[in-house]
Amino acid sequence: MAHTVFIPVEADGAETRVAASPDTVKRLKGLGLEVVVEKGAGLKSRITDGEYEKAGATIGSADDAGKADVVLKVRRPQAAEQKAYKSGALVIATMDPFGHEDDVKSMAEAGLSAFAMEFMPRITRAQVMDVLSSQANLAGYQAVIDAAAEFDRAMPMMMTAAGTVPAAKVFVMGAGVAGLQAIATAKRLGAAVTATDVRPAAKEQVASLGGKFIAVEDDEFKAAETAGGYAKEMSKEYQAKQAALVADHIAKQDIVITTALIPGRPAPRLISADMVKSMKPGSVIVDLAVERGGNVEGAKAGEVVDVDGVRIVGHLNMPGRISASASLLYAKNLYAFLETMVNKETGEVSVNPEDELVKATLLTHGGSVVHPAFAPKEEPK
Amino acid sequence: MAHTVFIPVEADGAETRVAASPDTVKRLKGLGLEVVVEKGAGLKSRITDGEYEKAGATIGSADDAGKADVVLKVRRPQAAEQKAYKSGALVIATMDPFGHEDDVKSMAEAGLSAFAMEFMPRITRAQVMDVLSSQANLAGYQAVIDAAAEFDRAMPMMMTAAGTVPAAKVFVMGAGVAGLQAIATAKRLGAAVTATDVRPAAKEQVASLGGKFIAVEDDEFKAAETAGGYAKEMSKEYQAKQAALVADHIAKQDIVITTALIPGRPAPRLISADMVKSMKPGSVIVDLAVERGGNVEGAKAGEVVDVDGVRIVGHLNMPGRISASASLLYAKNLYAFLETMVNKETGEVSVNPEDELVKATLLTHGGSVVHPAFAPKEEPK
Repeated sequence: MAHTVFIPVEADGAETRVAASPDTVKRLKGLGLEVVVEKGAGLKSRITDGEYEKAGATIGSADDAGKADVVLKVRRPQAAEQKAYKSGALVIATMDPFGHEDDVKSMAEAGLSAFAMEFMPRITRAQVMDVLSSQANLAGYQAVIDAAAEFDRAMPMMMTAAGTVPAAKVFVMGAGVAGLQAIATAKRLGAAVTATDVRPAAKEQVASLGGKFIAVEDDEFKAAETAGGYAKEMSKEYQAKQAALVADHIAKQDIVITTALIPGRPAPRLISADMVKSMKPGSVIVDLAVERGGNVEGAKAGEVVDVDGVRIVGHLNMPGRISASASLLYAKNLYAFLETMVNKETGEVSVNPEDELVKATLLTHGGSVVHPAFAPKEEPK
Repeated sequence: MAHTVFIPVEADGAETRVAASPDTVKRLKGLGLEVVVEKGAGLKSRITDGEYEKAGATIGSADDAGKADVVLKVRRPQAAEQKAYKSGALVIATMDPFGHEDDVKSMAEAGLSAFAMEFMPRITRAQVMDVLSSQANLAGYQAVIDAAAEFDRAMPMMMTAAGTVPAAKVFVMGAGVAGLQAIATAKRLGAAVTATDVRPAAKEQVASLGGKFIAVEDDEFKAAETAGGYAKEMSKEYQAKQAALVADHIAKQDIVITTALIPGRPAPRLISADMVKSMKPGSVIVDLAVERGGNVEGAKAGEVVDVDGVRIVGHLNMPGRISASASLLYAKNLYAFLETMVNKETGEVSVNPEDELVKATLLTHGGSVVHPAFAPKEEPK
């Protein structure tokens, strides 16, 4: 019998995204799976029940979770949800497991096969399943839109009969996926854009988007620049020189966007209270790492705080602020992963623990915590 | 003795702009005038008292209004302010006099020479004094930023590993100064932009910004298109065909920005409740004419209303949402006008009723309402 996929309403009311789109429902049906979508699951992402139905889904209720073989979610299921799922069900979501080891354990105890999409390896085959990239890209875009909305001046240079409005100066810290999209969006809006990154090799990517890379370009930097993307850590002396340069640069900016995250660890502090103070009143800082403790001293999760006229934007769930686009891409990421586990003949889903994607992402299976980062340490014999 | 210019805090607390900048203070001093700025007048536009002082101004209090020969303002002075000014003082502001004839009369009775900047003739010499253009330009920019912030999808097309996010469809109604800047800004952000205007000649301007002009391009249109900017009104038949085309077009848009104003009259209704209903949930409409009654049925001044999932943005004082830029340009507009009335030898200000700029803008003078649009009708002899 064909297996059933369930798409719940997210239990966290602040989560606006949904784990399936009409497009992915159609594709899941095409694989021979049954799809049940909880009533209203897509509304915050502008997808109506009718659209899911037209794509082939049945609209159900929370009770249908218990019959599902696969549950697609945005966020890690809460305790009550875990209990509602049937033992042996696959749960695929952004699990955010670090610091939530108890939840991982209880998913194992509930007999769930829980997959953490954020552990997907960065290999070519899995690019289409990379939720971190798909969501960070939109977060980087939205950071600039939010900054522009807070900012009390125009972003582009405007030459008018009554004088010239200068272009806004935007500085992006961290040139990963989010940072690069922030650079691209700020450039689109006509800002004068600079960026920095701990990887000297990022200089070329920043330049390719029209941004200027801010770095102490001494011999050490030049050697690291040509060494490729994952260069060794820079010397303490270099880091100190670079920090001084960046601090000086921040004081002259209108808008700063910080995007530095370290997987499984608190976000690094990039901007001190003194640096915030050095900026002109009316300047805007957007901290994309605020959920991980923040890159900016004084940033508050879920708030826009005003520090002597400098506004620090700490919106939670940035991709959720652009939910309709974020859900389409997220749903596609999950679909692409699930597809690898479906038998196209029978419409049955099975987990192959030897598959490298499964190995990387599977947290719990067969009643145990199986992921090496969370599994109980073996007793020395 | 040199005359004194006074820059008050705006009495309307919702007004974030200010009528002078450090740059214009310096220029006024250069003309030989004394400048007194009321404490805190620039704060909402990110100009500190210290910056005004450095430019040569004295920081004063509301009481200094009574000693001023010239008062520069953003908005028409309220009754209490009018009484505080000395008889014979010049007051230069956006007077918004239509529908406020009592206020015009009381300014005459107070002996003020009140100038309405929005009546500045659109001639080359007065371009630098054109407050309507300088502020509409920024309003058009901000309308797109506000729409992007409300919108739950990305504006540009994004081709990602997890699929393509389509470009947002933006439709700008009215291709005046605000509409053209809205078109330019939406194009910058990567949207697919269309626009319309009652003037067929606007087609070329829209196209020059990369927008597509939406019009029934029949023989009548083609004749009007080549006839220049101020063509005669189109036939009733043409208007009906065009309205049907536009209604059909609106149903397919993600974002609509309306910018149609008629001086001294209520804003024309461009979008009916049925047209709003025809749009997909999640769509956004920004009504830049909401202070004049609105182009959009259901728009509410000062609110963002949700009509079946379509958000209608009705922010008041759109230029005030981008106050730092708006004040710089507005201040320059007023300076340029005042400069024409200053004797560079003595630093004295005088009104020449024969000057064409004065003729167009002077509402009250010598105790009477003198502007032809507001002056009492002469009794027939």
